[in-house]
Amino acid sequence: MGGDSAPHVEVLGAVQAAKEYQVGIILVGAEPRIREELKKHDVEGLPIEIVQASEVITMEEDVSTALRKKKDSSFRVAAKLVRDGKASGVVSAGNTGACMAVTKMVLGTLSRVDRPALVAVIPTSKGRPAILLDVGANVDCKPTHLLQFAIMGEIFSRSILGINRPKVGLLSIGEEESKGNELTKEVFPMLKASPVNFVGNIEGRDVFRGDVDVIVCDGFVGNVALKLGEGVTEMFTTLLKKDLSKHLSSKIGALLSRQAFDSFKAKVDYSETGGAPLLGVRGVVIICHGSSTAKAIKNAIRVARECSFCQMNERIEEGVKALQFLQRPASENILIN
Amino acid sequence: MGGDSAPHVEVLGAVQAAKEYQVGIILVGAEPRIREELKKHDVEGLPIEIVQASEVITMEEDVSTALRKKKDSSFRVAAKLVRDGKASGVVSAGNTGACMAVTKMVLGTLSRVDRPALVAVIPTSKGRPAILLDVGANVDCKPTHLLQFAIMGEIFSRSILGINRPKVGLLSIGEEESKGNELTKEVFPMLKASPVNFVGNIEGRDVFRGDVDVIVCDGFVGNVALKLGEGVTEMFTTLLKKDLSKHLSSKIGALLSRQAFDSFKAKVDYSETGGAPLLGVRGVVIICHGSSTAKAIKNAIRVARECSFCQMNERIEEGVKALQFLQRPASENILIN
Repeated sequence: MGGDSAPHVEVLGAVQAAKEYQVGIILVGAEPRIREELKKHDVEGLPIEIVQASEVITMEEDVSTALRKKKDSSFRVAAKLVRDGKASGVVSAGNTGACMAVTKMVLGTLSRVDRPALVAVIPTSKGRPAILLDVGANVDCKPTHLLQFAIMGEIFSRSILGINRPKVGLLSIGEEESKGNELTKEVFPMLKASPVNFVGNIEGRDVFRGDVDVIVCDGFVGNVALKLGEGVTEMFTTLLKKDLSKHLSSKIGALLSRQAFDSFKAKVDYSETGGAPLLGVRGVVIICHGSSTAKAIKNAIRVARECSFCQMNERIEEGVKALQFLQRPASENILIN
Repeated sequence: MGGDSAPHVEVLGAVQAAKEYQVGIILVGAEPRIREELKKHDVEGLPIEIVQASEVITMEEDVSTALRKKKDSSFRVAAKLVRDGKASGVVSAGNTGACMAVTKMVLGTLSRVDRPALVAVIPTSKGRPAILLDVGANVDCKPTHLLQFAIMGEIFSRSILGINRPKVGLLSIGEEESKGNELTKEVFPMLKASPVNFVGNIEGRDVFRGDVDVIVCDGFVGNVALKLGEGVTEMFTTLLKKDLSKHLSSKIGALLSRQAFDSFKAKVDYSETGGAPLLGVRGVVIICHGSSTAKAIKNAIRVARECSFCQMNERIEEGVKALQFLQRPASENILIN
């Protein structure tokens, strides 16, 4: 119920997913509104049910207020269905911060996972998608958090995106091990010693090149990077459209450039990849853009289904467990007298 | 001598600058090579001289080696000319890290400036340029460093870009004061209390919108952001060119789209703005891309000239001095028993 066009696009996307992927759907929210939306579609025989939730967390809502006051929000009710084993995962286009906070409270993290990570699936010049994590679940990370992000991202890339032996890079400001801030310099040798296919530091300009499949960074840097990428694309589109229409003669030009733009947009379209999975939590949680289309919702449901089917969380727990034999950096040691 | 096409583009850019801006030029480096380049141009009557330097710091060179071993590198000799009052500023397309390190050693910082900041002048959707600082001079910054960056950036924006009462924003991951990492949350109230026109946090997607003139962040985040912006532009160009040539019929299409691209590229072209000024150091230092064109060198010389003419450094010292009455954050207090 929390998306910008809820529950219209959510219901449409869910109906399409139920048809295409043979996945059971529970729509959680204001039952009358959802029932009304469902009437617009042919849902005969589809495994779709409704669970009532009386409240909605808005986009502007403060996370702590949402946590404290809205006990019957649609996201919270949905997360409880996952906790209680009635659903494998939850997909939402609601307030990202609130979704993450409710998830942590209701579902909690997987065994040995210190912090969940929000994953952005991003387009690259080479055509195949890369992932960037964390893009906003955690700021001020410690080296071991980034190490766990690498493990979780590697497993997601392998099991969901089907990339064999994904290359893992650390987002920094120079290729050499000695380049970076305190955090990246500490995590670099840990990544080298870890079982992932670590290819070293990568710079901002390499993020969209497609040479690296899993790009690890702290949530502050990842969030700035992701939104900056969106911003540049927006600027680029605005400026170039102006220039194209100046140079291409009127209507033919507009038509031709629209085709090219549409085809281009499909490639860099975030809705193609669904939403942002929150890795490291119990159950499957996919958080979509507030302005998601039905197609994005449908794709997010597909990704959620795949995460569940391939037992991604069990793999993550195993992967993180294997890390415990690696040395923690000195800065994280706890002194016990 | 340190640029990718040195000294060819440097000499050409300098000759053009000497003609256009009535600025005196000292070319520093291998005298025979420079003299040979100068012969290609009509320099009759132009105020251009040569100072010999026997060494060159390469792009791959480790900064500490460059500092220790190459005492007669062209950048170092040039910086000494500034230190000794024989030049007002130095422009280089050499190794950025080495240029910054040599500058700190030979020239030092301005009075009360804790850390210099490297400034990127960036294009925006609105047409007028914004600046982002720091883009790589300092990682792991403290709040007072960011506060000083804001002051220095505001003065640069006003005096060099001619922006009246520039809007200063803090790069973070949400608009509210409570959003961000430890660093941004600590510096936010300091910026509010400072004399700059602080408009609050801005997100990655706002960087290129042109609503904010001076964007402040630590050098790690700024460097990732700047290079990521370049990377997205590269990906965008690659993908869109492919699509355009698919949709626009052969030659006419290619011609039309080339015109549009050229006109677009001129707008987002970093060479239009010259290079990256290193603010907060004694003298004027402008560091250009290694792959700078002669035009970029020429523009960098223009910016250096303006920085000197408008007495930017004196203004920065005054601006930073005025800050000393602001409270330092608790985290930076030094306990004295």
